[in-house]
Amino acid sequence: MTVEQIQQNVDFIKYLYENKDMRGLKDAINTYEAIEVVHILEELSPEERVIAYRFLQKDLALEVFEQLDPELQEQLLNSFSEVQAVKIIEEMETDDRVRLLDELPATVAERLVTKLSYEERMKTALLRGYEQETAGRVMTPDYLSLKKNMTVNEAIERVRTSDVDRDNLNTLYVTDASRVLLGIVDLQDLVIAKPDQTVGEIMNEDIVYAMTDHDQEMVARMLQEHDLIAIPVVDRERRLVGAITIDDVVDILEEEATEDFHKIGAVGKFKINFREARISFLVAKRIPWLLVLVFMNIFSGAGIAYFENTIEAVVALVFFLPLLIDSGGNAGSQSATMMVRALATGDVVFRDWFKLLFKEIGVAFSMGLIMALGVALIASFRAPEVLMIVSITMTLIVVVGSLIGMSLPFVLSRFNMDPAAASGPLVTSLADIAGVLIYFSIATWYLGIG
Amino acid sequence: MTVEQIQQNVDFIKYLYENKDMRGLKDAINTYEAIEVVHILEELSPEERVIAYRFLQKDLALEVFEQLDPELQEQLLNSFSEVQAVKIIEEMETDDRVRLLDELPATVAERLVTKLSYEERMKTALLRGYEQETAGRVMTPDYLSLKKNMTVNEAIERVRTSDVDRDNLNTLYVTDASRVLLGIVDLQDLVIAKPDQTVGEIMNEDIVYAMTDHDQEMVARMLQEHDLIAIPVVDRERRLVGAITIDDVVDILEEEATEDFHKIGAVGKFKINFREARISFLVAKRIPWLLVLVFMNIFSGAGIAYFENTIEAVVALVFFLPLLIDSGGNAGSQSATMMVRALATGDVVFRDWFKLLFKEIGVAFSMGLIMALGVALIASFRAPEVLMIVSITMTLIVVVGSLIGMSLPFVLSRFNMDPAAASGPLVTSLADIAGVLIYFSIATWYLGIG
Repeated sequence: MTVEQIQQNVDFIKYLYENKDMRGLKDAINTYEAIEVVHILEELSPEERVIAYRFLQKDLALEVFEQLDPELQEQLLNSFSEVQAVKIIEEMETDDRVRLLDELPATVAERLVTKLSYEERMKTALLRGYEQETAGRVMTPDYLSLKKNMTVNEAIERVRTSDVDRDNLNTLYVTDASRVLLGIVDLQDLVIAKPDQTVGEIMNEDIVYAMTDHDQEMVARMLQEHDLIAIPVVDRERRLVGAITIDDVVDILEEEATEDFHKIGAVGKFKINFREARISFLVAKRIPWLLVLVFMNIFSGAGIAYFENTIEAVVALVFFLPLLIDSGGNAGSQSATMMVRALATGDVVFRDWFKLLFKEIGVAFSMGLIMALGVALIASFRAPEVLMIVSITMTLIVVVGSLIGMSLPFVLSRFNMDPAAASGPLVTSLADIAGVLIYFSIATWYLGIG
Repeated sequence: MTVEQIQQNVDFIKYLYENKDMRGLKDAINTYEAIEVVHILEELSPEERVIAYRFLQKDLALEVFEQLDPELQEQLLNSFSEVQAVKIIEEMETDDRVRLLDELPATVAERLVTKLSYEERMKTALLRGYEQETAGRVMTPDYLSLKKNMTVNEAIERVRTSDVDRDNLNTLYVTDASRVLLGIVDLQDLVIAKPDQTVGEIMNEDIVYAMTDHDQEMVARMLQEHDLIAIPVVDRERRLVGAITIDDVVDILEEEATEDFHKIGAVGKFKINFREARISFLVAKRIPWLLVLVFMNIFSGAGIAYFENTIEAVVALVFFLPLLIDSGGNAGSQSATMMVRALATGDVVFRDWFKLLFKEIGVAFSMGLIMALGVALIASFRAPEVLMIVSITMTLIVVVGSLIGMSLPFVLSRFNMDPAAASGPLVTSLADIAGVLIYFSIATWYLGIG
């Protein structure tokens, strides 16, 4: 589906809506596939969205609802009667339901939960009992477990008659009478095995599993590293409580990458639908870091004030101020960004710091010399009297900026803080302060002022 | 496996190596699982790595080799005789082999390829015929195809006796006599179906598929969006040529996120093992943008030079220069980072620009006012004479910086360039130039100089 196709669909539905052709709208919206309807709904106004959604046939409506962003789910839910709302969330998969309930105002969520059937309420409570962003929270309680002494034929019969969602049948779990996890059987193992073998004979006992309180990103990396399509989640007694499937892993890694992206841009941590977000929400997420950086920058201002005499002696120094301090910040941003990503993907770990530090000095010094040549070229035309000062400063600033940028993520991770908090803007501000001090110190010394 | 466990394993192997206990090393290294050996090898020195690898038993050696980074694979290959090297790459999965061949020097790669068996050579040539980062390049030619008129029982027998890798058996493809793709059957459909039904009856004809020349990231998003665990790849005549499985998708999305990360940090596009990278390589990847930014900064320098009289009249203006221009750059970085990520994940598309622009003005203006208060507070202590100038400037600079940051990714995408090229440092430099002009223009006007 291309952007153009989506736009055509949206235009068509909007056209029917504007012409009040509700019959046509109902017919049209039901000809699309679920994912197409999702794209259309995302583009409609809230009023159009509610109307269009209500025209969907029951099965399609449910499928579409499951695939919508929680923000849009919430919006639609608000337009339903409580009976309708309960029916919809009752039909959702447990992990999707929990995600939606997290988004709803607590009172609304609780009222809806109490209306669910006993079984669904229990499943929901189970997942909601775990911390956000843990394996327990994102697992599905919908999996198929087998017993060790079953024959392969009996196991296949279990698969056939089970009401577990078919997407969760690729990996099957073997448990004992007290639900302790004993092994794993992939569906293809069942198909390939002889009908009279037992599950115990063909199961893989060498299991990779997650605990309920493991961090979701760590679990996602386990699946990725072992090329698995599902992983069992167990409690402290190694009893099976759920499973995490690869489609959730893709979403988790995507979400974590977005989080790191926002942090590196010095934006607060948040999940958002940009087109729906309120201005006040965006301001609240962005202003804190900006203010912190403003107050940090008092130090560069103070540094400049301290060197007022030097500046008054040679005003040409100021011409090169943005260029020099930016270069340190830019080199530092590069290092910080690379390290934050490498730490997040596990390509680099804390104990690599020392080794990488030496390499970074080599890299930064080489870059600093090249850039010193560049700035010397500029200075030779515009202000030859500061040529030596800016060249020496450039080399030093690039080295110092790079070292700040590459070290900060490691330092943060050492103190169990998120390395991604070493954002570009933070590194830039730190490099600025260092840059101002280096620049004017060298100038003062070189010009013999003091 | 925690970092501490890996370190223990590494220390143990290094200890055996240093004590020349080769017998112990051989015994020890073979007790680990493949993934553990991979982690150990990554930490060893090149010499230790070759020795340790050669002690691995055949099956384990192969499994380990497949999981290593291409850089380390290349290093190990160089230590083998050609006969050994050919044997190893002959045993690899085709898509992994192609990735390795891409990394090797062309002459070495060609020499190895000609030594492969006819069948493996053909499979390799097929994949290498496609552009890098396309579906054709990353697909596996190792899949199982069924015929429409087979019974379910016959199909299951095919699964049982096929030599297709078991991880590629979750999704099966139905083709006609000329290999044209007709439908898809999931393994669970086969298990659930009645034995005498035909494949044609149970297959899903409503197929999501990729073309060989589709971009890998687009294909990855298709699997993600449809919650698939495999997707068929077809040529222009809709003939089946391969399949892409979800484990590759996870790696592709990860790789693309890393690429965007590096771009946003103004680092060149590259895949790298940090611990192995040479200094010259890192410098070559990082210096181009830094130099571009240095020369862009000539404009801020020129702007300052133009306002030399204003600066000489009130040197206190310089105290606030880094603070003000950084604030514009920081707000711009925030917007750029958010937009780059939202464009990459598809949360936002080009036609949202206009709508988001108005919202951004609201957000930026609110933030600008708050930050103006902050800077006014600072100025009231340090330099009350410039209080009005810095407050007005702050508001304007934050708005202008934000608009540059949020618009640049859209502009780049309009011209079919990668939005991620709108890196933090680039936005910062543009915001700096704008900031200098705004600041000193306002100051000149306010102070009545000129």
